[in-house]
Amino acid sequence: MTKEIEAYFDRLWPICRSITGQGVRDTLRILSEIIPLSIHEVPSGTKVFDWEVPKEWYINDAYILTPEGKKIADFKVNNLHILNYSIGINKKINYTELKDHLFTIESMPEAIPYVTSYYKEKWGFCISHNEFLSLPKEGDYHVFIDAGHKEGSLTYADLILPGDSEEEIMFSTYVCHPSMANNELSGPLALAFLYREILKLKSRKYTYRFIFIPETIGAISYLAENGRHMKEKTVAGFVLTCCGDNGEFHYKKSRRGNSLPDRAVTHYFEKVIKHGQIRPFKTDGSDERQYCSPGFNLPVGSLMRTPYYEYAQYHTSFDNKSFISFEALEGTIQAYLSVVELLELNDTFVNTLMYCEPQLGRRGLYPTSLTHGTSRDFIDRLLHLVNYCDGEHDLIEIANLFDTSIFTFKEALDACLKEGLLVKKSSL
Amino acid sequence: MTKEIEAYFDRLWPICRSITGQGVRDTLRILSEIIPLSIHEVPSGTKVFDWEVPKEWYINDAYILTPEGKKIADFKVNNLHILNYSIGINKKINYTELKDHLFTIESMPEAIPYVTSYYKEKWGFCISHNEFLSLPKEGDYHVFIDAGHKEGSLTYADLILPGDSEEEIMFSTYVCHPSMANNELSGPLALAFLYREILKLKSRKYTYRFIFIPETIGAISYLAENGRHMKEKTVAGFVLTCCGDNGEFHYKKSRRGNSLPDRAVTHYFEKVIKHGQIRPFKTDGSDERQYCSPGFNLPVGSLMRTPYYEYAQYHTSFDNKSFISFEALEGTIQAYLSVVELLELNDTFVNTLMYCEPQLGRRGLYPTSLTHGTSRDFIDRLLHLVNYCDGEHDLIEIANLFDTSIFTFKEALDACLKEGLLVKKSSL
Amino acid sequence: MTKEIEAYFDRLWPICRSITGQGVRDTLRILSEIIPLSIHEVPSGTKVFDWEVPKEWYINDAYILTPEGKKIADFKVNNLHILNYSIGINKKINYTELKDHLFTIESMPEAIPYVTSYYKEKWGFCISHNEFLSLPKEGDYHVFIDAGHKEGSLTYADLILPGDSEEEIMFSTYVCHPSMANNELSGPLALAFLYREILKLKSRKYTYRFIFIPETIGAISYLAENGRHMKEKTVAGFVLTCCGDNGEFHYKKSRRGNSLPDRAVTHYFEKVIKHGQIRPFKTDGSDERQYCSPGFNLPVGSLMRTPYYEYAQYHTSFDNKSFISFEALEGTIQAYLSVVELLELNDTFVNTLMYCEPQLGRRGLYPTSLTHGTSRDFIDRLLHLVNYCDGEHDLIEIANLFDTSIFTFKEALDACLKEGLLVKKSSL
Repeated sequence: MTKEIEAYFDRLWPICRSITGQGVRDTLRILSEIIPLSIHEVPSGTKVFDWEVPKEWYINDAYILTPEGKKIADFKVNNLHILNYSIGINKKINYTELKDHLFTIESMPEAIPYVTSYYKEKWGFCISHNEFLSLPKEGDYHVFIDAGHKEGSLTYADLILPGDSEEEIMFSTYVCHPSMANNELSGPLALAFLYREILKLKSRKYTYRFIFIPETIGAISYLAENGRHMKEKTVAGFVLTCCGDNGEFHYKKSRRGNSLPDRAVTHYFEKVIKHGQIRPFKTDGSDERQYCSPGFNLPVGSLMRTPYYEYAQYHTSFDNKSFISFEALEGTIQAYLSVVELLELNDTFVNTLMYCEPQLGRRGLYPTSLTHGTSRDFIDRLLHLVNYCDGEHDLIEIANLFDTSIFTFKEALDACLKEGLLVKKSSL
Repeated sequence: MTKEIEAYFDRLWPICRSITGQGVRDTLRILSEIIPLSIHEVPSGTKVFDWEVPKEWYINDAYILTPEGKKIADFKVNNLHILNYSIGINKKINYTELKDHLFTIESMPEAIPYVTSYYKEKWGFCISHNEFLSLPKEGDYHVFIDAGHKEGSLTYADLILPGDSEEEIMFSTYVCHPSMANNELSGPLALAFLYREILKLKSRKYTYRFIFIPETIGAISYLAENGRHMKEKTVAGFVLTCCGDNGEFHYKKSRRGNSLPDRAVTHYFEKVIKHGQIRPFKTDGSDERQYCSPGFNLPVGSLMRTPYYEYAQYHTSFDNKSFISFEALEGTIQAYLSVVELLELNDTFVNTLMYCEPQLGRRGLYPTSLTHGTSRDFIDRLLHLVNYCDGEHDLIEIANLFDTSIFTFKEALDACLKEGLLVKKSSL
Repeated sequence: MTKEIEAYFDRLWPICRSITGQGVRDTLRILSEIIPLSIHEVPSGTKVFDWEVPKEWYINDAYILTPEGKKIADFKVNNLHILNYSIGINKKINYTELKDHLFTIESMPEAIPYVTSYYKEKWGFCISHNEFLSLPKEGDYHVFIDAGHKEGSLTYADLILPGDSEEEIMFSTYVCHPSMANNELSGPLALAFLYREILKLKSRKYTYRFIFIPETIGAISYLAENGRHMKEKTVAGFVLTCCGDNGEFHYKKSRRGNSLPDRAVTHYFEKVIKHGQIRPFKTDGSDERQYCSPGFNLPVGSLMRTPYYEYAQYHTSFDNKSFISFEALEGTIQAYLSVVELLELNDTFVNTLMYCEPQLGRRGLYPTSLTHGTSRDFIDRLLHLVNYCDGEHDLIEIANLFDTSIFTFKEALDACLKEGLLVKKSSL
């Protein structure tokens, strides 16, 4: 899978994305080759909760000509050079004026920063601090940005993959960052390829919702359209970001703190893979800020590698292909798939007998003679399962009480369902 | 007491018990000399929940004659040699066929294992692994088991010792194991002698139920008859097993995890004797599996010495008289008696004043002048007691809040009751 | 402030206070210069809950003349020499009889103990153990106590400082101890000067109740008059005692254990000053015994320095001016004032948007471009605040979730209130 992911990465990398504009559309078109997305356009000026969809941004070219005539901050070399969402400009200015429109990172002198100005009309360039230090202080600079804003629309995409039930598991990722690798190309790539894996599952209890949006305003626009439905149907949701570096898995909990995804990923970390870090919900971060706003309070967490803010390359030109690994990205997809399988397996069952243990011998479920060395693994799990399936405990809780992975109960569960010892609570 | 317990041990030891048959009856008859049990017979074939009472087993003799004519696996030497519940057999077979009917423990080469086959018709012998290795591979073996199954009944016994209230404390032990000491003779012996101690109490708030049954099918049969009543009346219950080794006290909690016996024994371990290990409920184990099945979910735990499964001698011929100690067994009886006294003392009281402290001086309950060195033990406990007796906290909680033993409150409690400062909540 | 406190200390020090009598009145009159107290008199014999207001005590002089004619235990030198609430006496007795009326502390041979006998008619003297050892055993002693009890009244004082709401914060301290410094002059002095600081606050959401009473019988009398109202209105209360030594801050929780003052002071210790010890409620101690009796169960704790019982000088002549420090006393007043400010700031707010984040940019609350090094302190707090202001969390909880002091949210809170993003829940 890694080769195919890499090929898509290479095609998506050069596109200059922003919260609106052609970059988003180009990105979604390419991703549609992997997942058959529905594309939606929300006109500029549309009111979405406390917000308004901004004008659509376009950009063709941008650069600075130094007094010596050297072209620097060239958009065609690296689209991070342009202040994202910049207005257009075309004029000669001196060093002093230019300086106020330059963004650098003094502590990382070789890195180009990623800077945006969505809600204030500004123009600007981002360059390495070393390049900034080398600029002559005398003479005229020619600043040229062929960009601007127009009435248009904000673009997002989604796909609903129906399952046996209307209850939904939701995944959301964002497609508004220019050429950076872990944040954000790893997210959309992980989600598109996760779709393919979920499609291969033999059955799906849940309906799956895949969302590709510009961050913040896109999530707000999406919720304006779909929030009421999602509040009613979503049982678990995840924001995909920072999926591609080689760091340890981290899970940021939903605002509720003990929602189904919180319990599922905690179980996955503690009992299944036995590593991974759990973090509490915080109101900084990505689109969980909207999904977990108090009116919605959706059960949405974020399973990622190294969290944003915790790696130095974040929001700089150093967050590039060499920072991530496609094996790590595939590992994240696999982790999400395991969590999906865990959620599909999890359910609340009811014991059909309730009073005393079932007689397992006549059902062929008990060893014919109990002696030293007989494995009790299957029997112990089966009796534990039958005892706790009282309609009050789901399988995650039952596995936690046994201090082991939910997946180790599959054989015993299947035997109990086949023998009619357990039935799904939802079927009663 | 230990001499008398030992004398009963010696009489009970040689009896070949099983889940049904004469061994159980003989055992209950001897125990009836200590505790006046009612004996009940449940006919073979009786439906009890998901189970059916099996036929009654009888056995007269069993052995193997080796090709050299040596008698081994002699039932009359050690009744563990026979596969418990074995069918009868009388024929000559070769080594290869014999081997499939022999049970040994390779890791304990001198021990005879205890093996049963209740629900599958089989014959077999249990021998030490060393004896097994010495068997000649050529020649004819004569296997002889004079045993079989017949329409009959399952036998169990109980005794109800009435108290002031219909609320019950229940004790259950099992009487289906052949010649083994800790598991199980220690359980029935502890319970029979505990009865004598409870009988000596000056008063009994609770009704006490003493149950002696074959494990599993006996408990299920007992619950079929008494379960509805027990579910309504039982406030605390205990399964007695593994009471005689020299190990530390362990308490296996009830399924509820915070039931009255769980709280009482935890208090007893932590605040009274200041040692003892608490274990969570598990669905393996003994008859708590039935008492704590979800439909009943009785408040039943198990206070024992070293838990079954945790000592090597378990279910082997090494679990014999030399493994246990009658002092340890008496210590376990004493521990149970202390827990009974704790439960009898515990109650929920209501302060008759509620607003501000009572004036203790005119009731003669306060030191006449408070100076340095005046012991405040009594006053502090009395005021703590009066404050927390709001109908919401029982004495165990109140003592826990004071970080001390419930028994240290007896004097203050009696003074408050005498002065009418407290009344039992149940009397209101 | 310390000089002024010290001047009041020096005036209050010599007064011989008790639970009734002129000493209490003189003390309250002096304190009234700082806080305009209302003085209340409760006649002897008045029934207050389970108690009766005792007769009023008066004392003019007391001493012992030794056989050599030496005057010792002179009340005019140190009022601790007299058994507090002693009856009068005037006679010659021998050493043996005298001995039964002397109180000393063997382990602190230079200290005079503080001893009382309120509810048993007795006479006695308190002297140092060394003085006791030096007494001749032969000859006549003249014991003289010009004291007695008469129909009169118990005196207490209070002041209600109204605020915007009828909800009350209550402070209580006691004025019944003779010449001791930490326990108790530090308490009344701290409370009188705290009043002055609270008076300076620009606004007061809460009504404040200041109570100066004799310990125990005074609190009971006060509750007999005001308890019903206080139960209805009190949101937080504190008993002031042991405010003047140089020890660490301690807070003894209210009986509820998680009441508003418990949460406020815990937050103050853990997130604001980052030191201080929390103690659970106990039924020994001071007037919290009455306020937290189960019928009232008021949210009353006690913020102090070193708790009574935990310093050797407690209830002896060593608890004097040299044991305390006026800087420490002022520090305690300041701590109480901070807790008041914390409680005034704390409230439960409701987000007026609820769905998705507010658009901060157009309100001028968002940095115009987000780049490396932009401080997110304000934004992060504002978004955290808006998210958790769902009507279920108060500011203390919200600050705890952010692991920081409630005071750091002031700027963000004010901005949100100004912009109408938040409203007080109580205003809805």
